[in-house]
Amino acid sequence: MDADDKIECVLERSVQRCESPSAPPLLGKAIRHAVFPGGARVRPKLCFAVAAACGDGRGLDAAAGAGAALELMHCASLVHDDLPAFDGAAIRRGQPSVHSAYGEPLAVLAGDALIVMAFETLLNECATSPEVLSPLMTILIEAVGAPRGIVAGQAWESEETIDLSAYHQAKTGALFIAASMAGAASAGLDPAPWRALGERLGEAYQVADDLRDVLLSEEELGKPAGQDASLLRPNAVQSFGVAGAMARLKSLVADASDAVPECAGAPMLRQIVQAQAVRLMPKSLLSKVA
Amino acid sequence: MDADDKIECVLERSVQRCESPSAPPLLGKAIRHAVFPGGARVRPKLCFAVAAACGDGRGLDAAAGAGAALELMHCASLVHDDLPAFDGAAIRRGQPSVHSAYGEPLAVLAGDALIVMAFETLLNECATSPEVLSPLMTILIEAVGAPRGIVAGQAWESEETIDLSAYHQAKTGALFIAASMAGAASAGLDPAPWRALGERLGEAYQVADDLRDVLLSEEELGKPAGQDASLLRPNAVQSFGVAGAMARLKSLVADASDAVPECAGAPMLRQIVQAQAVRLMPKSLLSKVA
Repeated sequence: MDADDKIECVLERSVQRCESPSAPPLLGKAIRHAVFPGGARVRPKLCFAVAAACGDGRGLDAAAGAGAALELMHCASLVHDDLPAFDGAAIRRGQPSVHSAYGEPLAVLAGDALIVMAFETLLNECATSPEVLSPLMTILIEAVGAPRGIVAGQAWESEETIDLSAYHQAKTGALFIAASMAGAASAGLDPAPWRALGERLGEAYQVADDLRDVLLSEEELGKPAGQDASLLRPNAVQSFGVAGAMARLKSLVADASDAVPECAGAPMLRQIVQAQAVRLMPKSLLSKVA
Repeated sequence: MDADDKIECVLERSVQRCESPSAPPLLGKAIRHAVFPGGARVRPKLCFAVAAACGDGRGLDAAAGAGAALELMHCASLVHDDLPAFDGAAIRRGQPSVHSAYGEPLAVLAGDALIVMAFETLLNECATSPEVLSPLMTILIEAVGAPRGIVAGQAWESEETIDLSAYHQAKTGALFIAASMAGAASAGLDPAPWRALGERLGEAYQVADDLRDVLLSEEELGKPAGQDASLLRPNAVQSFGVAGAMARLKSLVADASDAVPECAGAPMLRQIVQAQAVRLMPKSLLSKVA
């Protein structure tokens, strides 16, 4: 089974547990709607690729579990961020957002359930390597919790004065940093040297997202366009212009590639990072800025 | 330090981590508002009392951590259940509910953060007995997750046909069952025989809560009164009348006391369970039904 199939398989197993005959059926449906069909699954793929590059095949189950846990947290944040109290987005990934399809109560609860499922998935997939459960939990908690994780990132939008660097690091960077570090921790390595790779990739992803928000239509995006401007959120295109933002994206991807620590699979991983840069920038966008 | 102080101390340590200088300040305030001042802390006290009854003092740190984790989950569910999409309750524990004080976005995020904090607290407080982390996580996840935990309990209210037994078990019973089982697991024992105690106490608590909802005023309750009738939720007083519900409460407490498995501290624990029955029924309520 290749990495992509393995990640989907772990996510499928987790979602199925919510669809047991004794569970409230609409909640299970709302959870499935939030997870499938997925987006690019960039965070779990990064986590798995790092674990694969780090070693001898040890810890790949744990890496798939940690990656899937990060993806479930990401899905939870999308479901809650789309609520009327935040972005009020009616569509996501080209289909109705969870609250549009199932109502606000089930969207709040599906998000809550997805956070719990993330920890459950991590616990279950670490069954064959229990020694990495605790370090992986630490990484996951740091990436999502109140002081510096994605919850904090979203909460900065409720502050009168935004700490812009903390905002971006928390809202987008945290899950990329966690994905990179969790890959190394799954393989039994010290995760600290892997922080910079996730940090650079997270920044690159944020700039690419800002470009897409400004340049693509709602149909191309599969979600509302121009959200940053209408919600008065900071956006790299506003700050640097389209050409400036494109240059920054390229430079961040090069930095990310350079940040891959030496390990058995480093050359392959650097190639994956470079290929990711092309993925970040859809063809229709490349032609628009050519 | 006695049990109550120990639990408050663990909760305080967890909340303080959200108040670091780099965290968004209002989110930290909203989280503190949700946790302090607390309610009766019945779930963590039950967890700790079971662990203390089970043995030789082993696992009391883990029991305080598991109990605090359950309390944080309980707080998260109160914050989200009070949202306008659910009960729309403006007050809770005699003060403004979190969304009334801090707005809906921060209430959603504080609830999310509290779920993550529950796992963080469990992880940190199991540092001296890492062997119980995995069984305690399993108990915690079962108590809150989508198929049968408190999230499912709340989600049953969005179904056209409610499975009443699954609804009550999930909405109230799950956290009491988890508290009792986690106490035993913290002490390194098989938690299964401790399930019945939590189940009976959870049912007793639900009946007491139904009585309070019908008989007490908003001022006495510290939250809106008559919510079950106005939200068309099932209530034991509607089904059995006041005297019938009181009789059911007494019988459930007796059953709970009988359900305490044999262990070193069983006689003391049975006394605590009986005393709990008096706590469940505030004096003002006893005089009303005398």
